[in-house]
Amino acid sequence: MTKNSDINYIKKSLELAKLGLFTSDPNPRVGSLVVKENKIIGEGYHKRSGSPHAEIMALEQAREGATGATLYVTLEPCCFKGKTNPCTKAIIQSGITKVVCSTEDPNPKVSGKGIKELRQAGIRVELGILANKSKELNNGFFKRMLSDMPFVRSKLAISLDGKTALNNGISQWISGNSSRLDVHRWRARSSAIMTGSSTIFADNPSLNARLEDSVEINQPIRVILDSEVSISDSAKCLSIPGDIIIFTNKKELKNISKKIRNRAQIEIVNGNHHCEINEVLNRLSELEVNEILVEAGSKLNGSLLELGLIDELIVYISPKIIGSIGVNMFALPEIHDLSDRYNFSFTEIKNFDDDICLTLRREKDV
Amino acid sequence: MTKNSDINYIKKSLELAKLGLFTSDPNPRVGSLVVKENKIIGEGYHKRSGSPHAEIMALEQAREGATGATLYVTLEPCCFKGKTNPCTKAIIQSGITKVVCSTEDPNPKVSGKGIKELRQAGIRVELGILANKSKELNNGFFKRMLSDMPFVRSKLAISLDGKTALNNGISQWISGNSSRLDVHRWRARSSAIMTGSSTIFADNPSLNARLEDSVEINQPIRVILDSEVSISDSAKCLSIPGDIIIFTNKKELKNISKKIRNRAQIEIVNGNHHCEINEVLNRLSELEVNEILVEAGSKLNGSLLELGLIDELIVYISPKIIGSIGVNMFALPEIHDLSDRYNFSFTEIKNFDDDICLTLRREKDV
Repeated sequence: MTKNSDINYIKKSLELAKLGLFTSDPNPRVGSLVVKENKIIGEGYHKRSGSPHAEIMALEQAREGATGATLYVTLEPCCFKGKTNPCTKAIIQSGITKVVCSTEDPNPKVSGKGIKELRQAGIRVELGILANKSKELNNGFFKRMLSDMPFVRSKLAISLDGKTALNNGISQWISGNSSRLDVHRWRARSSAIMTGSSTIFADNPSLNARLEDSVEINQPIRVILDSEVSISDSAKCLSIPGDIIIFTNKKELKNISKKIRNRAQIEIVNGNHHCEINEVLNRLSELEVNEILVEAGSKLNGSLLELGLIDELIVYISPKIIGSIGVNMFALPEIHDLSDRYNFSFTEIKNFDDDICLTLRREKDV
Repeated sequence: MTKNSDINYIKKSLELAKLGLFTSDPNPRVGSLVVKENKIIGEGYHKRSGSPHAEIMALEQAREGATGATLYVTLEPCCFKGKTNPCTKAIIQSGITKVVCSTEDPNPKVSGKGIKELRQAGIRVELGILANKSKELNNGFFKRMLSDMPFVRSKLAISLDGKTALNNGISQWISGNSSRLDVHRWRARSSAIMTGSSTIFADNPSLNARLEDSVEINQPIRVILDSEVSISDSAKCLSIPGDIIIFTNKKELKNISKKIRNRAQIEIVNGNHHCEINEVLNRLSELEVNEILVEAGSKLNGSLLELGLIDELIVYISPKIIGSIGVNMFALPEIHDLSDRYNFSFTEIKNFDDDICLTLRREKDV
């Protein structure tokens, strides 16, 4: 039977894991505790790629106290040498006698092998407490490991009547300050922000994450789908430091300006008029992109939706009405039967000053 | 200083008032208590026009106990003889020594005169506790009394992307069972349900309130804006018992079918292509319509919005996406500047199974 104290220590470990929300990428967010006689004697989280794993941080704090203690960790300890040494070895050497772990690591290099190794060394391992919370915190990492695709989250800001902009393109600012600040938190946790060239033309966005100075952020990669590589040299998003990837379906790159070729990584994918989006996402997964935030217009959003590629929607609704002649959220071919609609389910509702924010997940096909 | 006990007794009176939510129309919903030595010795609410007022019901229960007691009531006692005798007289005769009242009655026949009469008879009167709650419960009655217009509430059921139907008109059922049941509660508290002839053509709705059999309802009047009086004799809403008013701008009624002339009250208003909506609402106010529920298409909703006539929006959002080629909520001329948008504010968010329901109030012009 699961002990309440175990649940609480895993909860606390999850809180620690969240400290890496904006920095651990492309690694998962992981938190860990060493507990002895109901006292926390070590705690850690994974801050960034190359820095110590959560378990190692917790063990280092616990020192000799680790002997006979329990280690709590939100993800299965790794058992291979990557940028750091395997955590399983360190746990075994520390004298830890019990490990409580939320969920297996979906990384094929681990995937149960870490737990097996601990058990073979005589350590009691309990698995599964708040597994969903741990997976949820790393939904991009899990999706990438299990299906070679990133987790795709599209953010839209709309009027009450579902319009993202006036017909003349004016959209700044449909939503209020607090909503826009919240968008920067979504950007900060994302591995990449994806948009289309038409959004670059229309809004000339910066596409970077801007939070208070005290908050450390791994800036997301800016991904632009631009089949003709037609964006201007002076686009704002090119002038800001950070990685940029431009996807095109043109095999011939001669006509691309030198500035853009120097500034951005150009990726060539298949596609007739537009880049083949599945291929784009596949490639981004290879580049270790876990979570993508889509901030795009109705065409790209429509295409992603049609292909069943949007996992999550973040929709800020402003209590304003624009009317029928405005820009729609999703450009889609006409649907003739309600059963052909795209189904989601609400997972969260939040208030941001005058706006509300709805979070939805795609309903998996039955 | 307001006593906590007074607030609590007014809260309890408001709960009693709500018992008349579906039946008191066109009268306001009013609740009352008689309290002596911290004990409730009488309670009442106004059930329906012609039946005793809340204060009278409470006093009758209290009998001789009323002498020296306090009467709580959510609306100023009436001081004129309508279908029933003035409440002020009965209160004075009962020996009540203190009256705690939420708010003045906006009815020009009362409007402070009731309170004055009580005070002149030596009764202590305290006014203002939870006044907003009492007004809110009777927003239609207050609006009609103060501005000769009903309170207009429009209900819309939309997809996440703001569409009320597919382009081919199919809309049943965008929203789920619980949402639809909630609509019947809104219908049941309304004095009238208003729609346009095109909705009758497209959806052939019943436009009556259907709740559990045990719930007593004053069926709302069905109001149809039909400039040409073109609806079919066989429209479902004509076959169901209850009052029907058809508004037209045709001065010549010869061409209207006998069945419709017998079944419905025909009201002629001004208007070129369409009925002049301000006049329609004015006329409905004269007919003692307090709250109107609009269940209409994008044209009527657009017109009402443009004229600043929608006081409240009830928007059921289903987590489904239909796409750009669907029916919009409000047919409006193009807006070229975001400052021309129509501003509302969110007042409530509720869940109904898979759907959410947003309530919004119009922002008064600054």
